[in-house]
Amino acid sequence: MKSFIPYNSNSDFSIYNIPFGVALIKDDYITCCTRIGDKVIDLAILYEKGYFNDIKGLEENVFQDFSLNDFIELGKIVTNPTRLKIQELLTESSQLSKDQETINQAFFEIEDVSMLLPVHIPNYTDFYSSLEHATNIGSMFRDPENALLPNWKHIPIGYHGRSSSIVISETNFHRPKGQTKPADSDKPIFGPTKQLDFELEMAFIVNKHTNLGESIAINDTEDAIFGMVIFNDWSARDIQSWEYVPLGPFLSKNFCSSISPWIVTLEALDFFRTTSPKQDPEVLDYLKFEGDKNFDIQLQIYLKPENGTENLISETNYKYMYWNMNQQLAHHTINGCNIEVGDLYASGTISGTTPNSYGSMLEITWRGENPLKLNNGDERKFIEDNDSIILKAWCEKDDIRIGFGNVINTVLPAL
Amino acid sequence: MKSFIPYNSNSDFSIYNIPFGVALIKDDYITCCTRIGDKVIDLAILYEKGYFNDIKGLEENVFQDFSLNDFIELGKIVTNPTRLKIQELLTESSQLSKDQETINQAFFEIEDVSMLLPVHIPNYTDFYSSLEHATNIGSMFRDPENALLPNWKHIPIGYHGRSSSIVISETNFHRPKGQTKPADSDKPIFGPTKQLDFELEMAFIVNKHTNLGESIAINDTEDAIFGMVIFNDWSARDIQSWEYVPLGPFLSKNFCSSISPWIVTLEALDFFRTTSPKQDPEVLDYLKFEGDKNFDIQLQIYLKPENGTENLISETNYKYMYWNMNQQLAHHTINGCNIEVGDLYASGTISGTTPNSYGSMLEITWRGENPLKLNNGDERKFIEDNDSIILKAWCEKDDIRIGFGNVINTVLPAL
Repeated sequence: MKSFIPYNSNSDFSIYNIPFGVALIKDDYITCCTRIGDKVIDLAILYEKGYFNDIKGLEENVFQDFSLNDFIELGKIVTNPTRLKIQELLTESSQLSKDQETINQAFFEIEDVSMLLPVHIPNYTDFYSSLEHATNIGSMFRDPENALLPNWKHIPIGYHGRSSSIVISETNFHRPKGQTKPADSDKPIFGPTKQLDFELEMAFIVNKHTNLGESIAINDTEDAIFGMVIFNDWSARDIQSWEYVPLGPFLSKNFCSSISPWIVTLEALDFFRTTSPKQDPEVLDYLKFEGDKNFDIQLQIYLKPENGTENLISETNYKYMYWNMNQQLAHHTINGCNIEVGDLYASGTISGTTPNSYGSMLEITWRGENPLKLNNGDERKFIEDNDSIILKAWCEKDDIRIGFGNVINTVLPAL
Repeated sequence: MKSFIPYNSNSDFSIYNIPFGVALIKDDYITCCTRIGDKVIDLAILYEKGYFNDIKGLEENVFQDFSLNDFIELGKIVTNPTRLKIQELLTESSQLSKDQETINQAFFEIEDVSMLLPVHIPNYTDFYSSLEHATNIGSMFRDPENALLPNWKHIPIGYHGRSSSIVISETNFHRPKGQTKPADSDKPIFGPTKQLDFELEMAFIVNKHTNLGESIAINDTEDAIFGMVIFNDWSARDIQSWEYVPLGPFLSKNFCSSISPWIVTLEALDFFRTTSPKQDPEVLDYLKFEGDKNFDIQLQIYLKPENGTENLISETNYKYMYWNMNQQLAHHTINGCNIEVGDLYASGTISGTTPNSYGSMLEITWRGENPLKLNNGDERKFIEDNDSIILKAWCEKDDIRIGFGNVINTVLPAL
């Protein structure tokens, strides 16, 4: 497939992607859009021009909105044909390729738009589904010989996060303050965190409401998953270790979480499906699945100090996840918990088997014991003021590449 | 003060209360309303009739809505005078008392309305602020000699809950299913919970948005607290004990939480302020407060079996809470976590010092070791199918009484 819009072969936004986002166009108006190469395309204008007239179920211009919620709520029966129609419109010799007036009105350079949160997120849950990450944390804080807790291989462990503080890439935030208890003190102290960390995660966004009491059977879960984004679950480790017993992480997490702007659909990811790690012991029936439910998504973490260049500090892959999205969503609803359109479900930190594939500074530097050397000669145990963290994610196979772009945030000094 | 609407001296909805709620009127339309005695009053109609014309800042009929969010977002500078105006309108010889046409249009019997969720709740946090409850749980599951964890007296411990599954009183729900691990099994099993429980809590609702990075100083917190409701944090103890390490309660809680329909304002509660338990050790500066920040709210729990009468199974008081709302909100935002209008913050289970004042079956029956005898001869370790739980809350002093009504839910058999 070839588009009439030229792009580099290493672009995340190839003709095979067709992601969805929300943009502020030229500081003027907000609209739902897609992207190819470095062009952002206003979907509300394509709708007005009649390009979606043959999509059944797309009876209103839902793209003329501040969020994608109304669009994705239409379900895959509408969103899939819409995405395929956009793809067709962007190929060479399409009707749109010859419609210069619409191209002039609806196509913008990426530099001319500001990306916004793509969906309103009513609820956010964070899972803990990487075996390697859970093993690292268990080894570090409990017992290396019994790193995994007894429930871990039976339950896709998760907890509720705070949706209000989820922000879009390029939103910077101030180092959070809070209560910590230094090892050498018998009392807690108050001040800016000294152990600010990122967590490399992926997250999926759901497209439907269910009623209280309703469960989504594991074979039906993919119909409810619209697509995925990169997720950075920013964490303050010193606040976390003091607060988290017995009810879990709270202020150590809810000061900021950040996502990449483009939702890549499950259908775009379909070509990159792969097998999952074998689950042993066998899981309960409601968590059993068939087929390839993992995805080969390459992941990178870069740290850029204030006056320096990007340092690649870790590389891993989403395909290593022990628990998959289908299992996460089936588990989340097995008790009748209702889901809402736009809900975000994050994977938990994604770590590989070696330090250069770990998904957090906590693991990469092993609690600061092995500081990381940057290419400007600096060292890092955790994240310092004015550091930027950039997470990247993409899929590549048989010369086909699609990607998520990145999520980047810079840490500002504490207020 | 005397109203032209007669009510019993033991009514929760005296002229001193003037709570706010949202009702479906005669299965016909939804509106914001208040209540006095057994009359529900449509505030949108009072607005239309010009009764709020002299309230500055109330420029639109925000009562004509499915939620109170837009009203409470106006802030106390508007909501307090509005409440006082309603109170004045309901006194004897008021202008309204002589306006039979408006009374006919706007006043309804409580039997003719269905109460709905009073606010859209963007985020929900559950605290763990009763010393007696935390001590009971610590004694039961850890060490009676060291029941409290080291952080408990320094931090108002809390965790994020699921806002999607918060329902209004009289919403019944099915016994949740899930994964548990019986003590005599080496594998988890799947099925309906065998240890369904309630938690008696109070919750407050906030009236403002803050920006990410902003904190609310403890002395400013009350301006952000619109009012309170009764909260039942339904819990499945067998699911909880298997899932909760290390990230806290999840499916054991998110199948249902229920609230009472009427938000009682902090201003109505003002007359019932009382001192707090002394906090020792001294808390960090950002948690220090002055004045009476606890409230003398009497609390009762009733259990009604399917074919039986109400059994009073516990009585306690909100005034025993170790951590107060001001501290909870100051703590929640000290790291810059942003709050949203309608957010709900629950107290955690409220327990007194003796079994007949405990706030959960887990404590009342001490994990089922001391079953509760009901007046029909039945016994209960936990909650059985078709049992109803009724939580009541009210304040009484110097012949003045205001209350919250109740929150009642019946447990239906598992689906």
